[in-house]
Amino acid sequence: MRISTVGLDADDTLWHNETIFRLTQDRFRALMADHAAPELLDARLAAVERRNLSLYGYGVKGFTLSLIETAMELTAGQPPGGIIAEILAAGREMLAHPVEPLPGVEAALADLAGSHRLVLITKGDLLHQEQKLAGSGLGDLFAAVEIVSEKDERTYRTLFERHGAGPDAAAMCGNSIRSDILPALAAGAHAAHIPYQLTWAHEIAAPPANHPRFAELASIADLPAWVRNLG
Amino acid sequence: MRISTVGLDADDTLWHNETIFRLTQDRFRALMADHAAPELLDARLAAVERRNLSLYGYGVKGFTLSLIETAMELTAGQPPGGIIAEILAAGREMLAHPVEPLPGVEAALADLAGSHRLVLITKGDLLHQEQKLAGSGLGDLFAAVEIVSEKDERTYRTLFERHGAGPDAAAMCGNSIRSDILPALAAGAHAAHIPYQLTWAHEIAAPPANHPRFAELASIADLPAWVRNLG
Repeated sequence: MRISTVGLDADDTLWHNETIFRLTQDRFRALMADHAAPELLDARLAAVERRNLSLYGYGVKGFTLSLIETAMELTAGQPPGGIIAEILAAGREMLAHPVEPLPGVEAALADLAGSHRLVLITKGDLLHQEQKLAGSGLGDLFAAVEIVSEKDERTYRTLFERHGAGPDAAAMCGNSIRSDILPALAAGAHAAHIPYQLTWAHEIAAPPANHPRFAELASIADLPAWVRNLG
Repeated sequence: MRISTVGLDADDTLWHNETIFRLTQDRFRALMADHAAPELLDARLAAVERRNLSLYGYGVKGFTLSLIETAMELTAGQPPGGIIAEILAAGREMLAHPVEPLPGVEAALADLAGSHRLVLITKGDLLHQEQKLAGSGLGDLFAAVEIVSEKDERTYRTLFERHGAGPDAAAMCGNSIRSDILPALAAGAHAAHIPYQLTWAHEIAAPPANHPRFAELASIADLPAWVRNLG
């Protein structure tokens, strides 16, 4: 079946995201240097984030709250006010961070947008994702934008039916094996993995072995040719 | 034109929301009693929320961050740790708060769902709104759920086209004149206002005077008859 719809992940596929979280985490380590060794801090933050994930979901605001909670835990509930102020400022800076498309993104999307229906499919804070898309200048290349709370098989089936001829006629592209690739393949779509330099621990998963609808691409520049080769 | 689609606001139309924010704000006043008079506290919180709205959007996580920021401001940047801990706990409790439909909601929606396409149209945190809908038991009555970052004229036009025959064949129902009524009327839809006992200061606006497509309803129990009377 001819591919008519291409789904694209946003964070770390179209623009940097994890890098910005890591930079904030580096800043948090420096802030907390008198209170916790970096390894302990990272472990506690990861535990707090995991515990809060079902309530806070994905995104900067929940991350900021988890940073504050981690600071509380590691200072016996009495963090210096300067630390809280720095965390609040860091969260605001992350939300206001300028968005620049990763190399090759604009050309690849412009190439595909003439022949395929492009759908942005992303998790995270609704408002922040919309602001990032607007800031990226890529908005006009997408036929639709879907910001979802979870990327599972049902999500992909529903979205590829809504924006095309179903998963058989769709390909998904993203940097997360766990969120972008495995559930899209399970839904029946094609899927291309484009690795990013960093992966959030929560998103790590093994790539599928010898799956007939899966491809590993070195760069998004290879996406248009791969999609067209599918038929 | 016959009305085929009915849009419904969620917070304070289908279930309590503002009441829960006010209860948390009462708790915040008690927590901060040694640091600020209630009127000063409320005024500072409102100013912080207004300042953060374009970055944080609507919802509990942004509100929690604004409470922390207000506590910082009113304690010269050195809030007692117990206050931060209480704010974090209050935010988590708001997110985990059980959802119960307001009186008459279930019957009115069940009545309309057989004859009309019901679409939930709401702002707020994506994940939290989905969780509230799931917890309310009302999910199956809706043909579609749309969680949006802003409710403006364009939003309503797009959604009523996506889920029906456009604004001419749609009616919107909600408690906020500013978000649910005025922009839906501007888009060309009918709109019914069902007041809630409280309105967030940011949402207050005057009702339209003598608008031919507007109605003020005392209760959601009156919604099915009003919709059917439109044709």
